[in-house]
Parts: sequence; structure tokens; C-alpha cells
Amino acid sequence: MADSPNCDLKSLSPLQLFEKVTEQGEKVRALKAGKAPKDEIDAAVRMLLSLKLSYKTTTGQDYQAGLPPRDLVLINNGTTKEEDEDFVDPWTVQTSNAKGVDYDKLIVRFGSSKIDTDLINRIERATGQKPHRFLRRGTFFSHRDMDQILDAYENKKSFYLYTGRGPSSQAMHVGHLIPFIFTKWLQEVFDVPLVIQLTDDEKYLWKDLTTEKAYEYAKENAKDIIACGFDINKTFIFSDLDYLGTVTGFYRNIVKVQKHVTFNQVKGIFGFTDSDCIGKISFPAIQAAPSFSSSFPQIFNGKENIQCLIPCAIDQDPYFRMTRDVAPRIGQPKPALLHSVFFPALQGAQTKMSASDPNSSIFLTDTPKQIKTKINKHAFSGGRDTIEEHRKYGGNCDVDVSFMYLTFFLEDDDRLEQLKQAYTSGELLTGELKKVLIETLQPLIAAHQERRKQVTDEVVKQFMTPRKLAFEF
Amino acid sequence: MADSPNCDLKSLSPLQLFEKVTEQGEKVRALKAGKAPKDEIDAAVRMLLSLKLSYKTTTGQDYQAGLPPRDLVLINNGTTKEEDEDFVDPWTVQTSNAKGVDYDKLIVRFGSSKIDTDLINRIERATGQKPHRFLRRGTFFSHRDMDQILDAYENKKSFYLYTGRGPSSQAMHVGHLIPFIFTKWLQEVFDVPLVIQLTDDEKYLWKDLTTEKAYEYAKENAKDIIACGFDINKTFIFSDLDYLGTVTGFYRNIVKVQKHVTFNQVKGIFGFTDSDCIGKISFPAIQAAPSFSSSFPQIFNGKENIQCLIPCAIDQDPYFRMTRDVAPRIGQPKPALLHSVFFPALQGAQTKMSASDPNSSIFLTDTPKQIKTKINKHAFSGGRDTIEEHRKYGGNCDVDVSFMYLTFFLEDDDRLEQLKQAYTSGELLTGELKKVLIETLQPLIAAHQERRKQVTDEVVKQFMTPRKLAFEF
Repeated sequence: MADSPNCDLKSLSPLQLFEKVTEQGEKVRALKAGKAPKDEIDAAVRMLLSLKLSYKTTTGQDYQAGLPPRDLVLINNGTTKEEDEDFVDPWTVQTSNAKGVDYDKLIVRFGSSKIDTDLINRIERATGQKPHRFLRRGTFFSHRDMDQILDAYENKKSFYLYTGRGPSSQAMHVGHLIPFIFTKWLQEVFDVPLVIQLTDDEKYLWKDLTTEKAYEYAKENAKDIIACGFDINKTFIFSDLDYLGTVTGFYRNIVKVQKHVTFNQVKGIFGFTDSDCIGKISFPAIQAAPSFSSSFPQIFNGKENIQCLIPCAIDQDPYFRMTRDVAPRIGQPKPALLHSVFFPALQGAQTKMSASDPNSSIFLTDTPKQIKTKINKHAFSGGRDTIEEHRKYGGNCDVDVSFMYLTFFLEDDDRLEQLKQAYTSGELLTGELKKVLIETLQPLIAAHQERRKQVTDEVVKQFMTPRKLAFEF
Repeated sequence: MADSPNCDLKSLSPLQLFEKVTEQGEKVRALKAGKAPKDEIDAAVRMLLSLKLSYKTTTGQDYQAGLPPRDLVLINNGTTKEEDEDFVDPWTVQTSNAKGVDYDKLIVRFGSSKIDTDLINRIERATGQKPHRFLRRGTFFSHRDMDQILDAYENKKSFYLYTGRGPSSQAMHVGHLIPFIFTKWLQEVFDVPLVIQLTDDEKYLWKDLTTEKAYEYAKENAKDIIACGFDINKTFIFSDLDYLGTVTGFYRNIVKVQKHVTFNQVKGIFGFTDSDCIGKISFPAIQAAPSFSSSFPQIFNGKENIQCLIPCAIDQDPYFRMTRDVAPRIGQPKPALLHSVFFPALQGAQTKMSASDPNSSIFLTDTPKQIKTKINKHAFSGGRDTIEEHRKYGGNCDVDVSFMYLTFFLEDDDRLEQLKQAYTSGELLTGELKKVLIETLQPLIAAHQERRKQVTDEVVKQFMTPRKLAFEF
């Protein structure tokens, strides 16, 4: 059963959407006034809510009756947004397309390279391992200089992995796991050190938080990260607020980056303005510095120039474009990158899952019942309006959030393909597809919670203590 | 004998000065062409050089024949400079007045308070010590909240001293000693802890230096500072590049300040532009943070809210105006301040002594002979053009650099007053006054060099090691 309208909203302008919401509101009022059957009213209300969400996603504004949308001008790299262009920066991901961001366009715009079959085959040859489902399915779809990492690796030259997280609230959602699941796989198949940055300073600067609270979130989030199964002998997790005051190499790299980036540049890259605090303006250097091995003298024995590979969601790329621009000017190698797609919100791929909107997210702390309810209630469906229509025309996997989530979490390729065909043909109903997702996520999250329980404060402390890892440099 | 013209140049506009230089150049050429007596030519050349210096001081440009001065627009706190207004910021001190900056005006402009006789008497009562000559003679002339420090001190509440230095080159000049000499006295009479910041990161950001070189300068400068006689049990000296990576409290305070200051604010206070690197833009927070005791957990046992007193030259006030604005918003007490005048360049009080111009400075490494030569050759004289005129009209102590230096370094008040009267009356000639200065400075600097020799790398390391001091908190 489809529980959301499958009308093509992506082609509508903000004003057209505004009119559609107004129209649907009037329809709901008429149905209620005419004492229509409850399920008919409910369906109309659901449609209204869905239209309001599309309106908000497209315009960035809440629908207000009688108040047409203001002009939508979004800054990105100093240019204004074209009407059908996706908006992607480290804080906002927005597209009018229900299929999500157009990643091929993004590769062109960001100037990165597509992860193609050749590269995936090469990774398979180099590691002797079947490529991770995130590679097979294009979850990690773009890269910078991954071929150089492989060149070096094939010549027995090591590298290290760097990823991170901005600890904005205690509870992480399933989307947050994507880079960590993949990084864990990379660490295992390449057998290299890994550093994980928790940007508690960033969260302090951007949010209404104390430094203490931000640091607390960092330690809580570290538990979830550790629960992904990282090897304590090969992994160093650090909070900026702590680690900056622990070794001198990190700050030296920060100040070097800060010397080589102007306000004009961060204005262009991140859209900062004169009213932004100087902490935000200088922060990009703090996310850049772990790309250089001399930020971790305890791991790399003081060695500079160990190559770095950064798996991250594509919205973090602006930080590393900047880093790659600065690197040669401070005598450091450019970090290589592997970019993932965004993890879509339950309500649809127009925006990414956000921990600050509980209804858009499945949290790692959710109970099996909460998972079931959220998916059934909120997961945007690519199904048809009625069972009859669905059987006749089939569902649309390209916009169906449950199907998207399964591509992230269902390991079995054949099963996934079967589901896709059955849903597309109309054989499988939305409720049935959701059931598969629920049954996939519930044990995954329960197992995560089980592992997380084992992560004591003492273990967190060990992971976060600067120390030598199980590698010689 | 006077060796510089005593004409009143301060009232001239840049264009008038330009014309005067051109005129004098023509006069020199005419004298040489006419084979005039050597001393006549020499006097005319001296006058020409002096005019060129005035031109440079006033316009910030070197005199170029045939090229009239460009318009002079100096930014200060967002306003353009009025024609006869002094220019003071952390990087530039400039006035057209040979007597130096008008400090009374500066107090009004900066919104600080004059150190008056009442305050000096109160310091004497509180400490039971004769006020330092820098207080008696107005070298430290302005303050912020010094009365609060005394209130607290009289109620047995302790405070700490914070001063610093930007280590831009290996050799410090005598002017650099002023804040340290006074700080040492304050530390002795109040018996309080002292922290000294060496902003090697600032110098890395502003100059063409590596971080290694900047850090090396910091350690070299620490030797000169230690040679002033600071008590190792009561004094902590730190390099930013090092200390930021040593304790977590310092960075936490930095990021707190950075959250509460916008680019607009630092643009207004320091004149930064969009082309400045983000390191410069965020640096003011790093000079602000040592004003808060939680930046030194090892000294203050983690206690916040220990009051801070900062003795510094008035050009550093913009940093601390900003700090005082931020302090209450991050729950910290505002630091109190004691401001000194600038130490004038040998060539005159229009600008401060600068280590980057060897001819304007007497270095702590200079030999007795170098000291003598520099003073005799470069110290701007308030004497008359000829001995006859000097005897008749007397010299002008207000613009005489040798006399100014004596007010800084000659301890004996009576002797200083005698010299003033004798010079003003014409009884004492410029050469004689210079001789007194030379004989005052030579043994002072020799003694400094002797003490500096005792300062080993090991002693520097001890001073720069974060540790508990001889105070309980």
C-alpha cells in the first residue's frame, strides 16, 4: 500500500507548489465540512502534509497560508543557484528531485572523478577482497586520487585513513554509520592506521552548546563509532577540544593552513559572511589539519608526508578541496578522497537524514517498535495511490526511501535485485517492502546496541589516548 | 651641539614637506657645485636627511624626486585619520608630532583612564613601596580597572600578571625591556604569578618565517626576558606554538573568544580585510585567552575567575578592548590593564623603536662602541643649530630623544631634573647630554648581556615548562 502521493512534484516551481498546498488545504476542509469517510479525510491530510514537506524542502520555508514563497537564492561557491540545481555544502543538502541529488552533475561541479568499474576492479585486485556493497552499489561514487593511493599501496607504501564526525547530539542515526562502516572495511582490507576526528569545537561554534556539552557528545558518539567494531590497536579517535591541547604537531599544521587561506577563499567555499564569528571562519583549517601525518607524531613517529585517504560524504568535500589547494604550498601531500552519497531522510531523498529532526531519522538508540513505527509512518513511498494502481503500474524504486535504505543495509545483492523487480512490477506492495526494511534494520540496530553496551568509558578513554598504533613508521 | 634642525615640521602637510625636501635638495646641489666649505655642505645634507625622514614618517612613503605624495588615508577603528591625528594600532605607531603621540588624546579615544597621582599614591600605600620611575614619570600613563585590582588586593584576593612579546627577530632592543622591567617590579611588590606569552604563531602568520624559525626566536627572546631577573618559581613563559598543544584549557578559552567575536568586529578593531588569511583574522583570540586563568590550569589549580592584570604598551590595547568586551559573555572577569607610552625611535618620537630598522634601535646585543656610535649619529636632538644659539635659547627636552631615553633608564629623579634644566637653559650641550645617556646605557646593557650569558637552554626549558608556581590557588 502506498501511503504518500506519487505525483511528480520535482517539476513544480515554488509558486506552483504553494498553489498545490493551498488547493489541498481547501480540499481537506471541504471533506471535513462534508463529513466524508474517515479514511478519505486521512488520505487527504497525508497528502497535505506531504505537499507541505515538499514545499519546505524546495523553498527552505514553512508553508504559510496566504504568503507566497520568497525568492529562493542559495549561495554556493559564490554563485547563485540555478532553479533546478542541487544545493550541497557541509551544512545543507537540498534538491527538488525526489530521486535525490544528481551525483553525476555534482562530480562535474566539484571536479572530482567517478568511481567506475575499472577502479572498483583495481581495488579488488589490490586487496584480494570482494568490493564492499557501498562500492558495488555506488554508495561511494566519487573520488580524488584514489589511483595514487593504489599505486603507492601496490608499491608497498603505506597510507592512513581519516574520517570524522561533528558530534551535535547524543544520539546518532543510521545514516551516520555509512562512512564508519565503509572506513572499517577499508581499514581491514588495506590494514592501515585510522584517525577519527570528532569536531566538538565546530559544534560549539555552530550550535547553542557549551564546550563541556560538545565534549560530552563527542565521547558519547565515540561509543557508537567504537561499536562499529574498530580495532583499538589501529584506530585513534580524538576530540578537537582535547587533542589540540595534547600534541604540538596538530596546532602547527592548523596555523600553517590558516596562513595560506584567506577570508575571501572561505567566503567563496563555505559562504561565510562578515557577521560570522572568527571561530567559524578559521575552523576549516582544523578539519584540514588531520590530513597531514605530522598532526599525529605519536602514530607516525614524527614522519611527515604519509599519504592520507579520507572517506566521507560528498558534502564534506569543500573542506578537502581547500586542503588539497593548500597542501603543496605547505610542503604536504594532498589527501585522497572517497565520496559517498547522502543518506536520505525518511521523508524522501530531497534532503539528508538529520539528527536534529527526530521524525526524519532512525536513531541507533531506537527500539524495534520505534523503528517499525517510524518506517511505516514516515518512509516516503514510491508506491501507487491504491493497491489496484500499484498492481497495475508498479512502484518506483528510484524515489522509494525504504528501497534506498535497503541498498545501504541489505548485503545480499540477489535479494535486493529480486525486491527491486517485484516492487517495480507491482508484485510487492509498499507495506511488504517496508517489512523487509524493518526486518533488516531491527537486528542490525539491536546488534549495534549490544556492542555499544560493551563500550565502557575506559575503552573510550583508551581509543582517545594519543599513542603509538600497531604500525611501524 | 645640535645635529638636527629644530624647525617645526609638524604643522606641514605632506605636500608642503615634499616641497621642503625638494628645495633643500636643490640647496645641497648648489652648495656642492659652488664648492662651499665642508661643514656648510654637511649641515645642509643633515638637514636634507632629516627632512626626508620627516617626510617618510608623515606619509609612510620614501621621498622620490618629482613624485608628490599620494593621499594618506589610514584606517583606525573604521574611521579615516584626521590630518593631525596620531595613528596607533598593534603594528604601526605614527605621529607628525616630534614630541611623540598625544597620550591624553589617546586616553580619550581609547576610553581608558589616566594614571593620576591618586592612583600612584594608592599603589604606594597598598604595596608599601616607592612607585617605580615608570609610574613617577608617566611612562605607564593609562589604565583600565587598576582600582579594582587594588580593591581586591587590599581584601587579600590575589591576581596574576600577563604580558608578552612577538618574537620577530633574534635581537631585542632596549625598548622591548620597558614592559618587562615594569612587570618585574609589579611582580615583586605585589608578589603574584606572572605568565609571559611569546606569540611565535603571530610572527609566523605575519612574517615570512617558518614555524621552526618563529619558535627559535621565541626561545632566544625568552633568554633576554629571563635576563631581566624574573623569579623562576613565580613565572611561566610560553610559546603559543608549543603551549597550545600542551594543555586543553588554553584552546578552550581561545575557541570561546572566537565564538564571540565576528569578522566585522576584528575588521573594525584591527583593520583586517577580506584578503587577509584566516590565521590573522582569528589570532586576536589567541592573545586574548591568557587573560583568563583557566588557560593555566597547572598554575591556578583549574580555578577560573582569578583576576588578570596586563602591563603592555598602549598599542596592544585593541586586543584587550576586544577581550574585555568578550569576557562577561563567556563568564570570565575582564582583565585590568596598565598602558605604557611607546619607546621612541632614535630618529625621533614620531614613531616607535623598531627591531626591523637597525638604525632606529639600540639592541641588547650592541657593544659599548655601537651604543655610543648609534646615539651620537642617530639620536634626534632637541638642541639648536649652533653652539651660540644653543647657549642663547637652550635645548628642547620635549623632542630630544636622548633626554627621553634618560627618563626611561636614569633612576635618579634629581639628576634627571638637573639635566633637564641644564639642557633647557643651554648650559648643557647635545653632545654632553648624549654622553650621559651613553654612560647610563652602556653599563645597563653590559650587565644585561652578562646575565643573559647565565641563561642556559636548560633554564629556558624550565621557565617554559607548564608547572605549578610558588602560589596556592
